[in-house]
Amino acid sequence: MQTELSTRLGVEHAVFGFTPFPAVAAAISRAGGFGVLGAVRYGAGEELARDLDWMEAHTDGRPYGLDVVMPAKKVEGVTEADIEAMIPEGHRAFVRETLAKHGVPELAEGEASGWRITGWLEQVARSQLDVAFDYPVKLLANALGSPPADVVARAHDHGILVAALAGSARHALHHKEAGLDVIVAQGYEAGGHTGEIASMVLTPEVVRAVDPLPVLAAGGIGSGEQIAAGLALGAQGVWIGSLWLTTEEAELHSAALIRKLLAAGSGDTVRSRALTGKPARQLRTEWTDAWEDPDGPGPLPMPLQGLLVAEAVSRIQKYEVEPLLGTPVGQIVGRMDSVRPVQAVFDDLTRGFERAIDRVNRIAGRA
Amino acid sequence: MQTELSTRLGVEHAVFGFTPFPAVAAAISRAGGFGVLGAVRYGAGEELARDLDWMEAHTDGRPYGLDVVMPAKKVEGVTEADIEAMIPEGHRAFVRETLAKHGVPELAEGEASGWRITGWLEQVARSQLDVAFDYPVKLLANALGSPPADVVARAHDHGILVAALAGSARHALHHKEAGLDVIVAQGYEAGGHTGEIASMVLTPEVVRAVDPLPVLAAGGIGSGEQIAAGLALGAQGVWIGSLWLTTEEAELHSAALIRKLLAAGSGDTVRSRALTGKPARQLRTEWTDAWEDPDGPGPLPMPLQGLLVAEAVSRIQKYEVEPLLGTPVGQIVGRMDSVRPVQAVFDDLTRGFERAIDRVNRIAGRA
Repeated sequence: MQTELSTRLGVEHAVFGFTPFPAVAAAISRAGGFGVLGAVRYGAGEELARDLDWMEAHTDGRPYGLDVVMPAKKVEGVTEADIEAMIPEGHRAFVRETLAKHGVPELAEGEASGWRITGWLEQVARSQLDVAFDYPVKLLANALGSPPADVVARAHDHGILVAALAGSARHALHHKEAGLDVIVAQGYEAGGHTGEIASMVLTPEVVRAVDPLPVLAAGGIGSGEQIAAGLALGAQGVWIGSLWLTTEEAELHSAALIRKLLAAGSGDTVRSRALTGKPARQLRTEWTDAWEDPDGPGPLPMPLQGLLVAEAVSRIQKYEVEPLLGTPVGQIVGRMDSVRPVQAVFDDLTRGFERAIDRVNRIAGRA
Repeated sequence: MQTELSTRLGVEHAVFGFTPFPAVAAAISRAGGFGVLGAVRYGAGEELARDLDWMEAHTDGRPYGLDVVMPAKKVEGVTEADIEAMIPEGHRAFVRETLAKHGVPELAEGEASGWRITGWLEQVARSQLDVAFDYPVKLLANALGSPPADVVARAHDHGILVAALAGSARHALHHKEAGLDVIVAQGYEAGGHTGEIASMVLTPEVVRAVDPLPVLAAGGIGSGEQIAAGLALGAQGVWIGSLWLTTEEAELHSAALIRKLLAAGSGDTVRSRALTGKPARQLRTEWTDAWEDPDGPGPLPMPLQGLLVAEAVSRIQKYEVEPLLGTPVGQIVGRMDSVRPVQAVFDDLTRGFERAIDRVNRIAGRA
């Protein structure tokens, strides 16, 4: 499965796998895809350096990428504490009450919140990049708009391609004008931050808008037939995130969450502002329901909501409070029904792709 | 473009074109696709008979189908007047006020409402079927669940395949259990009544759920690459509705509406209950906004909402009140940017399909 972009990056299959787990990213690259490690859960650069060292030792020299969450708009000199101070007390009370209603225990004294959003702050993302540029990262993706011009220039100086997610042709054109190299067209059905245009419509629209830049189809892809569909829509590859959550290598550390993912159908997700303040698709839970409740205060804008709920999410995860327990995931969750090694999942993708190509060739009278 | 289903129906291309306009349906069938005439706008059976006579004279013996809107649940002895009586006065006042705010003129004395929903009433749909069974209709599709068992049996007695739209695998399975022959998997991005699962995820999910029944991919399809994608997802054909609205043969009778369709982008639709009481994708207008307004009364359930707004929609259409003027249409509206004959649109679809197959074969190393 070779496109101009996959050839340029030196990978066997034009399958880009996004994951917060180094073991998953490395396994995707070893399988012949392109693993992209999500950096948002890292705080300081040192943690990232530790995991990039690990990636270097476990990717057999295969290429891989890094995904950061860097806001395009610079906010000078704003600290996490400044942002904390902007959160209304009513919202804090709503979080406390919702947790109390479900009997969610407190974290232990001095225990840090495991779920972090500090990677969204530009200074944190920049410190991560200072580290990343010392590694042979081949692609740098940004989940929140075009990265700042100096970051794009630095990446290009290191021979790194720069990608960004886009939920509309307009966003994609903005990325092209900012000098980016690859556009990830993130359809409505995708997990995480996403817009309202579904992949079937979005992918070809973005392909035409940014031509000749390569586009990756993201959203709803978890089988070889969906890869074939994404490529038929004009993409130079597919971007798969959710599917890896239920691989053996994923470090979810929650049997309850894995159970929920395996049990969920395609209709069990919701596009909600509950987690970050921007619409992000995730498992629908009593937590997301609480934030949709017209009698509640509703979510705050990014980045306030993420800071507001960080500790709560950590507590829900740590104590596996099932009714509230969720995760960003796309509608493809309906297809995730067993825990298997990345290599087995990847083999299914490539075999399913070949079968889908066989089938469309028969339909087209070319068999 | 041949599948088992297209062969069975005797059409050259597995492209099913749904349209309320006989001239469009006939042109689709003449072009080598399968035209499906929507019957919802017809009242009594005589009107339908007149247009089916016309179809017979203009399809050159090619096969075509009929789409009715028949509720699966039978409501015995309920008349339109009974349903009218269930509409709250507050909702009627809201309609009057919204129309007055935009200066929408009244219909002339004795002028009938052109926009009808009477086709949704089971007795009307049944009188249409009494007519339709006298014509060589090859496929009967129902937009509102499985048709009643006796209707399915009568269709089968006439050698007619029965299809129904499904927005989820659960709906699709229900259709299979009701003895239906074809499932139209209607993705989130589709125009008209639609669920929340996007085509990329829905199509293969429905294919697996109802195997070996044939599935048509509906929602987001308006180009040959999207046809290739739908078929790669396992469909035995595609179901295209919106795209024909801006063909020369379409009888929209509104230059303003055509202008709005040509100008709209993929983000200019909304899934709203404003038109029928069930979520249906349509152009976003000040009319749909009014029904979303938290200070307004909100839409009534089907079939009340359709009866409530029927005259208002007719007035908005007749006087082409632009801010309120809309129509059911899918996200593919972003691609509809010129008015052309059906044959030219169809030729683009088949040529684009061949190009998409060429491309995926190159990617798969089979060129």
